[in-house]
Amino acid sequence: MSGTGVWLAGARGSVATTAVLGALAVRAGLAERTGFVCEVPGFPDAGLPAVSDLVFGGHDLVDVPLLKRAEQLAHAGVVPPGLPARLRDELAAVEADIVTGGADGRTRDPAGTLRRLTDDIRAFRDRHALDRVVVVNVTATEPPTAPRPEHATLAALRRAIDGGTMVLPASACYAYAAFEAGCGHVDFTPSVGARLPALAELARERAVPYAGNDGKTGETLVKAALAPMFAGRNLRVGSWAGTNLLGGGDGANLADPQAAASKLDSKRRLVAETLGYPVDGPLHIDYVADLGEQKTAWDHVTFRGFLGARMTLQFTWQGYDSALAAPLVLDLARLVATAHAAGRAGPLPELAYFFKDPIGATTHDLAAQYDTLCAFAARGCR
Amino acid sequence: MSGTGVWLAGARGSVATTAVLGALAVRAGLAERTGFVCEVPGFPDAGLPAVSDLVFGGHDLVDVPLLKRAEQLAHAGVVPPGLPARLRDELAAVEADIVTGGADGRTRDPAGTLRRLTDDIRAFRDRHALDRVVVVNVTATEPPTAPRPEHATLAALRRAIDGGTMVLPASACYAYAAFEAGCGHVDFTPSVGARLPALAELARERAVPYAGNDGKTGETLVKAALAPMFAGRNLRVGSWAGTNLLGGGDGANLADPQAAASKLDSKRRLVAETLGYPVDGPLHIDYVADLGEQKTAWDHVTFRGFLGARMTLQFTWQGYDSALAAPLVLDLARLVATAHAAGRAGPLPELAYFFKDPIGATTHDLAAQYDTLCAFAARGCR
Amino acid sequence: MSGTGVWLAGARGSVATTAVLGALAVRAGLAERTGFVCEVPGFPDAGLPAVSDLVFGGHDLVDVPLLKRAEQLAHAGVVPPGLPARLRDELAAVEADIVTGGADGRTRDPAGTLRRLTDDIRAFRDRHALDRVVVVNVTATEPPTAPRPEHATLAALRRAIDGGTMVLPASACYAYAAFEAGCGHVDFTPSVGARLPALAELARERAVPYAGNDGKTGETLVKAALAPMFAGRNLRVGSWAGTNLLGGGDGANLADPQAAASKLDSKRRLVAETLGYPVDGPLHIDYVADLGEQKTAWDHVTFRGFLGARMTLQFTWQGYDSALAAPLVLDLARLVATAHAAGRAGPLPELAYFFKDPIGATTHDLAAQYDTLCAFAARGCR
Amino acid sequence: MSGTGVWLAGARGSVATTAVLGALAVRAGLAERTGFVCEVPGFPDAGLPAVSDLVFGGHDLVDVPLLKRAEQLAHAGVVPPGLPARLRDELAAVEADIVTGGADGRTRDPAGTLRRLTDDIRAFRDRHALDRVVVVNVTATEPPTAPRPEHATLAALRRAIDGGTMVLPASACYAYAAFEAGCGHVDFTPSVGARLPALAELARERAVPYAGNDGKTGETLVKAALAPMFAGRNLRVGSWAGTNLLGGGDGANLADPQAAASKLDSKRRLVAETLGYPVDGPLHIDYVADLGEQKTAWDHVTFRGFLGARMTLQFTWQGYDSALAAPLVLDLARLVATAHAAGRAGPLPELAYFFKDPIGATTHDLAAQYDTLCAFAARGCR
Repeated sequence: MSGTGVWLAGARGSVATTAVLGALAVRAGLAERTGFVCEVPGFPDAGLPAVSDLVFGGHDLVDVPLLKRAEQLAHAGVVPPGLPARLRDELAAVEADIVTGGADGRTRDPAGTLRRLTDDIRAFRDRHALDRVVVVNVTATEPPTAPRPEHATLAALRRAIDGGTMVLPASACYAYAAFEAGCGHVDFTPSVGARLPALAELARERAVPYAGNDGKTGETLVKAALAPMFAGRNLRVGSWAGTNLLGGGDGANLADPQAAASKLDSKRRLVAETLGYPVDGPLHIDYVADLGEQKTAWDHVTFRGFLGARMTLQFTWQGYDSALAAPLVLDLARLVATAHAAGRAGPLPELAYFFKDPIGATTHDLAAQYDTLCAFAARGCR
Repeated sequence: MSGTGVWLAGARGSVATTAVLGALAVRAGLAERTGFVCEVPGFPDAGLPAVSDLVFGGHDLVDVPLLKRAEQLAHAGVVPPGLPARLRDELAAVEADIVTGGADGRTRDPAGTLRRLTDDIRAFRDRHALDRVVVVNVTATEPPTAPRPEHATLAALRRAIDGGTMVLPASACYAYAAFEAGCGHVDFTPSVGARLPALAELARERAVPYAGNDGKTGETLVKAALAPMFAGRNLRVGSWAGTNLLGGGDGANLADPQAAASKLDSKRRLVAETLGYPVDGPLHIDYVADLGEQKTAWDHVTFRGFLGARMTLQFTWQGYDSALAAPLVLDLARLVATAHAAGRAGPLPELAYFFKDPIGATTHDLAAQYDTLCAFAARGCR
Repeated sequence: MSGTGVWLAGARGSVATTAVLGALAVRAGLAERTGFVCEVPGFPDAGLPAVSDLVFGGHDLVDVPLLKRAEQLAHAGVVPPGLPARLRDELAAVEADIVTGGADGRTRDPAGTLRRLTDDIRAFRDRHALDRVVVVNVTATEPPTAPRPEHATLAALRRAIDGGTMVLPASACYAYAAFEAGCGHVDFTPSVGARLPALAELARERAVPYAGNDGKTGETLVKAALAPMFAGRNLRVGSWAGTNLLGGGDGANLADPQAAASKLDSKRRLVAETLGYPVDGPLHIDYVADLGEQKTAWDHVTFRGFLGARMTLQFTWQGYDSALAAPLVLDLARLVATAHAAGRAGPLPELAYFFKDPIGATTHDLAAQYDTLCAFAARGCR
Repeated sequence: MSGTGVWLAGARGSVATTAVLGALAVRAGLAERTGFVCEVPGFPDAGLPAVSDLVFGGHDLVDVPLLKRAEQLAHAGVVPPGLPARLRDELAAVEADIVTGGADGRTRDPAGTLRRLTDDIRAFRDRHALDRVVVVNVTATEPPTAPRPEHATLAALRRAIDGGTMVLPASACYAYAAFEAGCGHVDFTPSVGARLPALAELARERAVPYAGNDGKTGETLVKAALAPMFAGRNLRVGSWAGTNLLGGGDGANLADPQAAASKLDSKRRLVAETLGYPVDGPLHIDYVADLGEQKTAWDHVTFRGFLGARMTLQFTWQGYDSALAAPLVLDLARLVATAHAAGRAGPLPELAYFFKDPIGATTHDLAAQYDTLCAFAARGCR
C-alpha cells in the first residue's frame, strides 16, 4: 500500500506534534522504533504502510507554529533538544497542511461546519493523491456528552444538522467528517467521538472502519497488566486507589472536573470488569503545573491471600504522555488504514490493546488483547 | 479420584504449616478459597481431588509441634489468631504422620538414608490406603549444587550410592525417594530437586510426573506480569533493579549468600528472557529480622519511550510468603496427582505458571503461562 | 502531683480505647513506653503524673462496651490479640466512669446540656478525689463551624445559651464544660474545640490551660520533618501532593467532604508556612474501608535544585492512627495537668510539637517545636 | 573580603563542572540562588564573599575541556541545554587555571609530587592576587585507607615522604598541599582527606581551617531529617534498609566494592547514633549506568508504636547529585574562607550540616546542625 495520510484533529497538541516530529525523525534516520507496537521484532507482518511514508495534515483551533511547539516539547524533556531544529524544513512542509480552525461544538451553522471539515480532509487527500486517510482525534478531552434523541439514527442526526441545531460535540464532528469523507477514524481520547448510533450507521454506510477510545499509555496500562495477575492467582482485591498527577495542557484541561469525569469513567471500569466483582477505592486526576509534560501515577492495592492474610502492592509510574502516545497514534493510523484497504468497516475491537475503553471489546486483560492484536495483524487486518 | 496424599519435605516449616492448617480450615468450613488458582470461578474442571480430601504427612528435621508452629504464624499475622486452637485435634492427627528426620545430605549411609525416606513415604500411602501421593519439597533453599559425573545417569548415581558416597543434596534425596516410591514430585524451592539427568531417568523408569522449581509468589510474579507489557509496547528497558527484604526462617536462610545465589539465579533470568536483550540492574535478597513473616520487595525500572524519553516504573510488594505459597502448594499437589492418574510421566512444563524457573517451559510471560495451565486443566491434566 | 484524671470526650472511640487500654497495660507491666514523647530517655523531667496513675472517665454517645471495642482493635492489629482479655477487670472499672451521652450540638436545652456535661466532669473528679482533670476531645472530626456573632464574647455566648439557642458545635461544648468545671482541655481533633474568643475568655476567667488542635500522627508529622529540610537547603518546592487513605471510623467520618474540609485545612498550611511561598498540589483524604484501622499516605514532592535541575521525593507512610495517637493523648493530658498545677492558664503554644494546627504557635518546624517542648518540660511546664 | 579562590581537586568532574558553570551563570545573571544554603532569605549575614566574585582553578588527571564536560551535563539533564554555550568564554578562562595532573597516590617521588601540588595552588593564588584560597576535594571516592604509623605525627609523615615512601592516598595529598600552601580545605568526599593526626598537626601549624567529610546531598540528608522524628516520638525503629542506585562517574566508581565501603561506612552511622540503639538493615550502593547523572534512593523503615503496633515508612529520592552538591561546594568554600579570615584554625564542626560524616561534630540531627550553622554564620564564622 502506498499513499497513506494521517489527519490529526488537534494537530498542534503535544501528542500530535510528537507524532509528526517522530515520524519525520524516523524518515530522516534520526530515531529508533522504540514505542511502536507494530515494530517489535517478531510482530506479524500485516503489510502496514511504513512510518516514514505517512503524510500528515490536520485541524487545530490555535496557530502556534509546529516548530515552536516542538521546541517547547524539547525544553520539557519529551524530545531531544536538537531535534526540532534539524527537522525545521520538514515541519514547515507539514505546517502547510494544517488548517487553523475545526470543530468547537458551538457553531450556528452546523451543516456548513461539518461540510468544511469534510472538505478540508478531502482536499488533503486529493492534494497528496493519497489512497487513504485516517482521521485521528487527539484534541483535549471533552466533558461527558449528554444523550440526545438526535444521536439515535443517522436520519434524525441529519435532520437536526440541516435544521441548524448542532447536536454533536467537537469530537463527534471530526468522526462525522471522517466518515463523510470516506476515511477511517481513531479516537485516542475519552471523548464521545464515533460512539453514537447515528455515527455507527454512517460508518457502515460509507464502509469505513474506526477504533477507540482513550489511548492506554500509563496507569491504566499497568493496571491492565496487573489486574489479571490478581484474578489468576485468586487474590481478593479489597481496594485499588489511584492518584494521577499531570502537568501540561492535558493536565490543565483535566483540572476541569467535567472533563476529568470522562477520563475517570474509562479508567475505572477495568479493575472491576477484570476481577468480576466491585472494587472500592478513590481515583483522582489532578493538575500539577510543575510537572510540565510529565505525568506521575501512584496506585495502592490492598488484597487478601489464603486465610485472609493482608497484603499490598503499590506502584509509581512516571512518564511523558506524549512520548508514550505518539507511536501508538502512528501504529493505529497504519492499522486502520490497512483494515480499510482490506475491506473492514465498522468498529475494530481487535485494537483493544491500545485503549482504556475499547469499542466492542470483551476483555481488559492486556495479554489477551495483545494476542488478539497479533492475530489481527497476522491476517492482514482483515 | 479419591485418596490423595501430600507428603511435605519440610513439614514443620512456615509454608507447610500454613498449607496443612489451611486445608484443615477449608475442610472445617472455616476458610475461603482465596489464593487457590484452581478454585477461581470459571477455571476449567480438571477433576482434581478436593482440598478438603487431601491427607498430609511429611519429613522434618526439627520436632516443634505443628500446633506451636501454627500459633507462631498466627502471632506473626499470617493466619487468624484463633484458628490454630480451633483445629487443635486435626493438627494433632497430622502430627502422627510427620516423621522427625529426613535427608541432610551428609549421611554416611546414603543407600540406607534413601531407603528409609522411600519407606516412610510408602508407609504413609499404605497406612491411609491412598491411591496416590505427591511429594512436595518446601525445605529451606540450598546452596547451588556443584555438578558431578554421578548425576549424569541413573546407573552412575546408583553405583555411587551403593558404594557409600552421598552425591545428592537433600532436595534431590526427596525427589529420589518420591520417584522410588512411585510418587509425583513438586519442588517449590530453587534447590536442585529433580533437576539432574539421573533423576529424570528414574522418573521415566517409574512413570511418575514432576514439576518445579521455585514457587513464584511475590516480586517475580509481578515481574512476570509487567515484563511482557514493556515487550509488547516496545518500551526499551534500561535497567531493572530489585531489593527483597525478608524476615522469617526463609530470610534467615537466605542471609547466607550461598543459599541466596540459587534464588537470585532463578529470579534474574525472567526479565532478559522476556525482553530478548540483557537488562542491567542489581538484585538483592536481604534478611531483615524485624519483618517477621513478611516480605517486602522494591523494584525500580528505567525505560525509554519514543525519541528516547526517559521514564520509570517502581513498585513495592508487601506480603506474607507463606500465605501466598500455601494454596499454590495444594494446587500443585492436586494437579500433579491428577496428571499422574491420567498417565503423565516426566516433567510437566504446563505448570510453569507456578514457578520462577519452570522445568521445560519456554516462556516467562505470565499470561501465556496461564493460558497453557488452563488448557492443561481443561484436558484433565493429560 | 497525684490524682490526675483524664476525661475523654469520645471515650469509646479507637483512640480513647487504645489510650485507656494502653495505660492499663503500662500499669500492669504489660506494655513498654514506645510512642510516649515524655518517656524518651533524656527527656526533661517535668514532674508529670505517671501514666500508671492516671484515672479515666468520659462521655460517649454510643454504649458498646470498652472490652468489645478493645477486642475489635486487637482483631484489626492495633493492639496485641490477648491483651484486652487480660485487662478485662480493669476495663470494666473504667466502664463505670463512662457516661453514655454527651454533646451532639442539636439540643433544645443548651443550658441544661452544658450543665449536665459540666456536672459529669465534676462528679468524676469528686468521686475519685482527683486534684485535677484534663478533658481531651477525641470525638469524630466535625464539619467546619460557621462563624457567629455569639462566639465573639463570653457574655454574648451566655446570653444565647440562656436564651435557648445552641450556638456551639459539640467539640466546643466539651471545651465549655471543661472550663466551667475548672479543668484543662486538649483538642486532639481539627474541630473548633476551644478556638472561639468566648471560650478563650472563659478559660482566662477560670484560669485553666488548654492546647490543640489536631494531633500530628502521620503524613503531617513527616511533612513537618521534611519541609524544613527543603527550606534549609534552599531547594525550591514546585508541588507537594498528598493522598491519604483511611479505613476505620475516622475514615468513614472523613468520607464526608464537609468533615474532611476541617482536616484538609489544618494539613494544608504547614508546607507553605514553612517554606514561605505558596506550594501547589492536591491533598486528598479518602475512605478505604478495606484498610481497617490502618492509614496509608503517599506524598509526592517536586523540587528544583541549582540551575533548575528537576528532582522528586515521594514517601509512603503506613500506620495505625490509634497506636500513634494514644500515647500522645496521655502525654498531653499529663503536660496540661502539670501546667495547670504550675499556674499556667490560657493556650499552651509550647505543645505545638503535638499538633497539625497548633494554637498560638509560630512555627511548623518539627525540630524547633521539639526544642520548645523540651524547654517547657524542663521548667516544669510553667 | 575580596579575592577568594576555590581550588578544585577533580576540577573536571561532574560536581566541579556544575559548580564552576553555576557560579559563572550567577555572575552573568543567568541563574537563581536555588540550592545555596547561605542565600536563603533570613540566613545570617556572615560577610561571605559573593558567589559571583569567586575565582576558580584546580587539578584534574584528565584533560577533557570544561565546555565539553558542561555539555555532557546538559545532555544528561543536570544543567540547562543552552547554558554551556552561552558561557563558553568564561569557561575557557577557568580552563587556563586547571592543571592537568595531580595526586594519584602511586608516585615514586612523594616529596616532589607534594611540592608540585603546593606550588600549583600558590601560583594560582599569586596569579590572581587572591587574599585566600580554599582547596575542595571533589575527586572520586577512594577505597578505605589502611592505617599506618606514619600517619600519627607530622614528623613521622615528613620522614616517610622525604625518604621516598608515599604513605598518603591522593585525597590526603590534596589536604597536605592545601595546608602547606596556607589554604583552608574541604573534603566533600568520604575519602580520608585531612582526617589523619599528622595532617591535623599540619593544619594547626599553618593555622588553617578545614571541614568534611562527604557531602550530604540525598538519601542521608533525608535520613538526617527523619531519624530525629522517630527519636522524638519514641517510635522504635526495627530496621532501616536503603538501596542507592547511581549512574554517572560516581556510580561507576562506587561499583568497586572497595570504594563503596568508604561511602557505606559514613552513611551507616547516622541512624544508630541518632536513635541511640543499633538498627538492623541492609545498605546498598549500586551502579546503574542507565540512570546517567541521576541517583535514586529507596529507604524502607519498619517501626513499632504503642503496644507494639507495626508500621512502615518508605521514601524514594530521585535527584541529580551534581546539582545538589555544587551549591554546597560553593557555600563551603565561602564559609571556610571567611572562617580563615576570621582567624579560625583546625576543624570546623559547625559545618556538620553539610556532611554525612562531619569532623568533630556531636550530632547527626539535621535541625540541630542547622541551628549550629546559623549561629556560626551569625558570629562571622569565628
